[in-house]
Amino acid sequence: MAKPKKQPRPKAVTPKGFRDYFGEEVTQRTEMLRTIAGVYHRYGFDALESSAVETVEALGKFLPDVDRPNEGVFAWQEFDENDKGDWMALRYDLTAPLARVYAQHRNDLPTPYRRYAMGPVWRNEKPGPGRYRQFYQCDADTVGTASMAADAEICAMLSDTLETVGIPRGDYLVRVNNRKVLNGLVKDMFSSESDASEELVAGILRTADKFDKVGVEGVKQLLTKGREDASGAFIEGLYLTSLQADRVIEFLLAKADTDEETLRNLRAVVGGSPEGSEGVAELESISELLKAQGYGGDQISIDPSVVRGLGYYTGPVYEAELTFDIFDEKGRKRQFGSVAGGGRYDDLVKRFTGQEVPATGVSIGVDRLLAALREKGRISAQAKGPVVVTVMDRDRMADYQAMVAELRNAGIRAEVYLGNPKNFGNQLKYADKRNSPIAVIEGGDEKANGIVQIKDLILGAKIAESATLEEWKERPSQFEVPRGDLVAKVREILDNQD
Amino acid sequence: MAKPKKQPRPKAVTPKGFRDYFGEEVTQRTEMLRTIAGVYHRYGFDALESSAVETVEALGKFLPDVDRPNEGVFAWQEFDENDKGDWMALRYDLTAPLARVYAQHRNDLPTPYRRYAMGPVWRNEKPGPGRYRQFYQCDADTVGTASMAADAEICAMLSDTLETVGIPRGDYLVRVNNRKVLNGLVKDMFSSESDASEELVAGILRTADKFDKVGVEGVKQLLTKGREDASGAFIEGLYLTSLQADRVIEFLLAKADTDEETLRNLRAVVGGSPEGSEGVAELESISELLKAQGYGGDQISIDPSVVRGLGYYTGPVYEAELTFDIFDEKGRKRQFGSVAGGGRYDDLVKRFTGQEVPATGVSIGVDRLLAALREKGRISAQAKGPVVVTVMDRDRMADYQAMVAELRNAGIRAEVYLGNPKNFGNQLKYADKRNSPIAVIEGGDEKANGIVQIKDLILGAKIAESATLEEWKERPSQFEVPRGDLVAKVREILDNQD
Repeated sequence: MAKPKKQPRPKAVTPKGFRDYFGEEVTQRTEMLRTIAGVYHRYGFDALESSAVETVEALGKFLPDVDRPNEGVFAWQEFDENDKGDWMALRYDLTAPLARVYAQHRNDLPTPYRRYAMGPVWRNEKPGPGRYRQFYQCDADTVGTASMAADAEICAMLSDTLETVGIPRGDYLVRVNNRKVLNGLVKDMFSSESDASEELVAGILRTADKFDKVGVEGVKQLLTKGREDASGAFIEGLYLTSLQADRVIEFLLAKADTDEETLRNLRAVVGGSPEGSEGVAELESISELLKAQGYGGDQISIDPSVVRGLGYYTGPVYEAELTFDIFDEKGRKRQFGSVAGGGRYDDLVKRFTGQEVPATGVSIGVDRLLAALREKGRISAQAKGPVVVTVMDRDRMADYQAMVAELRNAGIRAEVYLGNPKNFGNQLKYADKRNSPIAVIEGGDEKANGIVQIKDLILGAKIAESATLEEWKERPSQFEVPRGDLVAKVREILDNQD
Repeated sequence: MAKPKKQPRPKAVTPKGFRDYFGEEVTQRTEMLRTIAGVYHRYGFDALESSAVETVEALGKFLPDVDRPNEGVFAWQEFDENDKGDWMALRYDLTAPLARVYAQHRNDLPTPYRRYAMGPVWRNEKPGPGRYRQFYQCDADTVGTASMAADAEICAMLSDTLETVGIPRGDYLVRVNNRKVLNGLVKDMFSSESDASEELVAGILRTADKFDKVGVEGVKQLLTKGREDASGAFIEGLYLTSLQADRVIEFLLAKADTDEETLRNLRAVVGGSPEGSEGVAELESISELLKAQGYGGDQISIDPSVVRGLGYYTGPVYEAELTFDIFDEKGRKRQFGSVAGGGRYDDLVKRFTGQEVPATGVSIGVDRLLAALREKGRISAQAKGPVVVTVMDRDRMADYQAMVAELRNAGIRAEVYLGNPKNFGNQLKYADKRNSPIAVIEGGDEKANGIVQIKDLILGAKIAESATLEEWKERPSQFEVPRGDLVAKVREILDNQD
């Protein structure tokens, strides 16, 4: 048999747009997902885990009749002799799989069906700084009910979740808006319900998103005759009348101190439009239900300036923002912004079954939430490493293994040094790289005398950094204790370090 | 703009070979992974999560120079105008990504590097009953040390893990073998270290795997002149001499009551072969280290009859078997078999860097372990559902929401019925489908009198099934309590149900 030609060495690189997560990055996310799942569970939501792979057909947006249906998703064709295998793809969110699962299993599932799902999703997009092609989502949805109680419940759960993971009341706000209010407003401004209103709503949403940048005057120009931007380029306007534009701005600025006032403002804005009135009534219902459960306006609040997602959802939309300030590398204050969003979408299952199935849900950006907690110093990215038992005599590995076994059985994270023990300095360097709190040393003399040396590495590092000679003498960071006291002394030092 | 042609409705089906996991299936796996991670962590192993996607080049087995490199893996080509994009694939295990990560980050990682990883892997294989194309693995590996202490540690950790997740001592056995012993034996039987010995070892492993089916005599025939099977077909033999075959059988049967005796038998079998002697010495070292940590022969044991994996690994191999009996649908006793396996592989990183990096590790089959615990009745696949607050008066949704909020704040899983409340029977049917332990009812009369009705659904179901009329009168399953006692009474009933 001919030997295969020698291949060049493969490159050891993470594929472009993907990344590896190490140590605490992994365990902190796991812990957060667990905490969130606990809240969702208490609300009666059931776990669902669908596979990462779906047929392109079921995913929807991406049709199998084009040659390469992987715009936006990672897709491939199943092998088939006639090249007619199904196109498969990695899920790009957790909502499309939910629609498929609900349509497939609807006879076995309870109605309404409350489910939560957490896991990675994949996007075949150009990666950028901080933008990856695999990231985590953490969703909760209620399928099969049009009741506003379902939307109120999602908002309440979102508030509870944020407080449970460590964002206290006052440091976040869940803001609620409703697509129907804006729809109604636009319909009320024009006599006919022409196709143009869809486009107009989209245009208004795009414009509203520029509020921060161009202010009320700028928005008014963009809604009417257009506007020249800083570079001198002319941005076409939407050609509303001045009165109409004022009404839209009134809508966007309708937020008042209380929900009651905000709702009154909105009622004035939508005029006689039935859809608009329905939207306001829905918001009112959500607001009342939340008050009955004791939520305050500093936790959840009606806010028409939330326009993100309005184009996608069909009724109420919600968004959770962190409201505390953080500071960037240059010391500039900035807001952290949105960490969760969702809303009502009533036509997701229809694709499969032809029946309209109302649904509402939320998606939490777990990685952003983690980043926020880290920036606020509420969790540390650097955890304590294990106690390292060093190896002074390689023939007595069994003794050292017995020590780590004792430590572990006492619930203490511990390991024996498994590298080449010849150079003791390397062992301490290793302990340092592991961020170890303590090193344990037992050489031949110690063994003969029935003792062990226990080195407090954290105190040692502190002393090395700043102590005077006197302090150094006074506060030893290395202790000699009887072998039998190993576990007790290690625990004492660990407790003092916390 | 022309409207797009109407598409036929997509099929709502899980892709072939994949499945959806619901409720307890998900949470029990999550809980088990968490428990295992806890043990790994205590042993000083650090979490690593690489992405699901790797370049085909880095994955190794599958080369990008063929037209469709997705034999065994799910692979696709990155989009590139010249059709020269990289081939990407879903990882098929957690070891290949570890090799890539270690080669890529080796200057930043501690040496030795102990890491654990858990998550789904994907295989592009023909699905079969119980065989899925996505499944979970849960691995721990130590990279960068040739010390047998690393192998002993993995075995100890595996034993601890099994006992921690609920398999008690005596219900499992970690069995340890070493590839070098068999290699040495074969080399000792032939004068030259020809290529043939590789093939011969493979043949012996194939034969040894048939022990259960054909017995000692059958194995001896297969090792020598060949054998006619039950159907009359002739299976070619390996053409060893009778003496040589006896030696191989001696190896396979070398297991004795204690490791000491087993090692003595192995020493006799390998004769003067240096590689064989090294293998025996390695096993001896592992055995001694484990004894020093207090592990018994009923937990971890040297056993040369373990041949699975011997072809793949380069030194010690280990396998964890569940030893208790289970019964199939027809009441037949069978063994559950292997739930974890691993061993030493010393050339994994070399592909990338040219340097040999010793490594050893284990992979736990989480789904098999869960199935075993379920079969033994140690965990139940059916968990208690939430308390369901029914809706008697749809205008008082806020009242019902306040009730579930109270229950949840007391840590009780609870939800309000969100379907159409018109038909009360449907609400109870829903509670039944949700496996609810309790339904709460507050109609207009109850509201007026400041009371609620609390229905013990589990007791109710029991009574409905078997009670006489007298018993039914004696043991009411529905209670009327003051509204203020709602939480206390619900908790009392839940406690009694446990």
